Amino acid sequence: MTANLIIALDAMGGDAGPDVVIPGAALALERHPDVEFLLFGNEARIAPLLAAKPKLKARCKIVPAEIDVAMDEKPSQALRRGRNKSGMWLAIDAVRKGEAAAVVSAGNTGALMAMARFILRTLPGIERPAIAAIWPTSVGESVVLDVGATVGADAHQLVEFAIMGEAMASCLFGKQHPTVGLLNIGVEEVKGNDSVKEAARMLRELKLPLQYEGYVEGDDIGKGRVDVVVTEGFTGNVALKTAEGTAKQITTFLRQALRATLISKIGAFLAGGAFNALRERLDPRKHNGGVFLGLNGVVVKSHGGTDALGFATAVEVAIEMVRNGLVQRIASDVAEVHNVLQAPRNGEGES
Amino acid sequence: MTANLIIALDAMGGDAGPDVVIPGAALALERHPDVEFLLFGNEARIAPLLAAKPKLKARCKIVPAEIDVAMDEKPSQALRRGRNKSGMWLAIDAVRKGEAAAVVSAGNTGALMAMARFILRTLPGIERPAIAAIWPTSVGESVVLDVGATVGADAHQLVEFAIMGEAMASCLFGKQHPTVGLLNIGVEEVKGNDSVKEAARMLRELKLPLQYEGYVEGDDIGKGRVDVVVTEGFTGNVALKTAEGTAKQITTFLRQALRATLISKIGAFLAGGAFNALRERLDPRKHNGGVFLGLNGVVVKSHGGTDALGFATAVEVAIEMVRNGLVQRIASDVAEVHNVLQAPRNGEGES
Repeated sequence: MTANLIIALDAMGGDAGPDVVIPGAALALERHPDVEFLLFGNEARIAPLLAAKPKLKARCKIVPAEIDVAMDEKPSQALRRGRNKSGMWLAIDAVRKGEAAAVVSAGNTGALMAMARFILRTLPGIERPAIAAIWPTSVGESVVLDVGATVGADAHQLVEFAIMGEAMASCLFGKQHPTVGLLNIGVEEVKGNDSVKEAARMLRELKLPLQYEGYVEGDDIGKGRVDVVVTEGFTGNVALKTAEGTAKQITTFLRQALRATLISKIGAFLAGGAFNALRERLDPRKHNGGVFLGLNGVVVKSHGGTDALGFATAVEVAIEMVRNGLVQRIASDVAEVHNVLQAPRNGEGES
Repeated sequence: MTANLIIALDAMGGDAGPDVVIPGAALALERHPDVEFLLFGNEARIAPLLAAKPKLKARCKIVPAEIDVAMDEKPSQALRRGRNKSGMWLAIDAVRKGEAAAVVSAGNTGALMAMARFILRTLPGIERPAIAAIWPTSVGESVVLDVGATVGADAHQLVEFAIMGEAMASCLFGKQHPTVGLLNIGVEEVKGNDSVKEAARMLRELKLPLQYEGYVEGDDIGKGRVDVVVTEGFTGNVALKTAEGTAKQITTFLRQALRATLISKIGAFLAGGAFNALRERLDPRKHNGGVFLGLNGVVVKSHGGTDALGFATAVEVAIEMVRNGLVQRIASDVAEVHNVLQAPRNGEGES
């Protein structure tokens, strides 16, 4: 292997394991021919799939791992059972050792986060990590975090999320000053719980290096009102899944309606191009890739049920994050505001 | 006026005030000819609109009120300024005095809840009220609560919400045993925050008169997996607005895609019936009406920006709730489980 960009892949992660990871890596390689991969997992499963992709094979090294982390395994159990032995663990550890620049896994989210925290540790000054989703909006994409890593984040943690999300948006969208909003249940100052109100006060009053735009509401996310939407992990996870569910519900309604009569079927046939454009715009595979923020390394989580195209998107997100120096940027941003964030906490009634 | 069903209307509430409330009441009367209305507000604004609707006028009484609560007024200020004088206050007070069976307002939600709590009080055994939304699903409708009344509800309050939501679903859908789920970020037992986990334990272990189905996730709401989805007010509000935003975003995408080419425009024209069916199914005016639960009276909040059709839906929700004895049902359900709910609290790490 050369000094090219090397990505570690948890080849056994996801509902289909290597059947999706290998062709996904091949797709990503087509668009980024200078990337190389380390494939961690069951060699007997991986090798024949790789043999069918000679171009990919030339840019890959298989690292055998004897244990697969199950999709429904408890994180604590996965940590115990998979330590030093599972492909997931070894792939993350390759990032720690500097053998890979990032790791991508479609496996068990809880296990991946538990292992990543254990192996890579959080960056100095970061209390808790976050998972950031890339959310398709009417005007492009936004970063929404946290979508499930830190349930009940307090005001300080929300401010950290704002800093990390801003760094990610900057890397992803190439914007110098991405805008940041705090998710709330109204835009008036009195609305929300104590953590959100205190985080808002900090973002407003402290001289942080980010462009804070105030509160946003649930319907502002899809409008793309801000580049970065900050919330704690419970609400963020519910919002993300609710949006995915609503999108699926409406496209199902539409399909049913179009099949109802012969005329509407003909209309649907003629408008086929438009529906393809819609499908493309809503395609979850194009926005796949949850980025773990706040760790000493780039970790990207692909949807477990995605296909090769979706997995390739997650790999490309990892490449973007590495190329644009996500971790270094977060580390320097956090160092810059370290004194501010370490100031005594006050005004918080709940966490 | 006879002993018919009488509904109090806050005629000045909502973005358009009586311009929507009066024609909305007229529409509701067409479908429920035995209903009568008390119209609270500025008589000079109301009377001419009513004069144009003789059928409605015959079933209405105007009760003049000198003050209008503003849509952006702080609840505390609205309470001070509007007490005994605003149409909103007087309309709610008519329910307390038994002059009306329910009140419907499209006005300021926070002010309406503050006044309703002050005037009607919560039912015995109920700690905090909730606002329940009617959520269109793939298989019909579900009740989702709380969508903004009680931010950070604890486990006991979540259990109360479950009981109240179940009563409402029973009244609304005519089901003997509506199913109830707790909103969480995964279906495994270990997921979620302490309030949700403790509420789940109570719903599982205590012998409550409801059919508890376990955890549901954000994408399960739109699938209609359960009749009643229970969560605290912050998450519920974000979920509701996120779903509304996503629905709007997708229909906008669709419109844009269909206008892109001549062929797709022709297709869209032919499939017009299907799009109308879709629009009808997604029409927020057909699911309008947030029900305030846990109070000594039926209070229904209409969207502030809706039109006459939407307001009529909210009035019909109020009629359903009265006819099916919502308040009595909640009161008796709560009394039934009173001992269970008053048992010493344990296992709660946060609220």
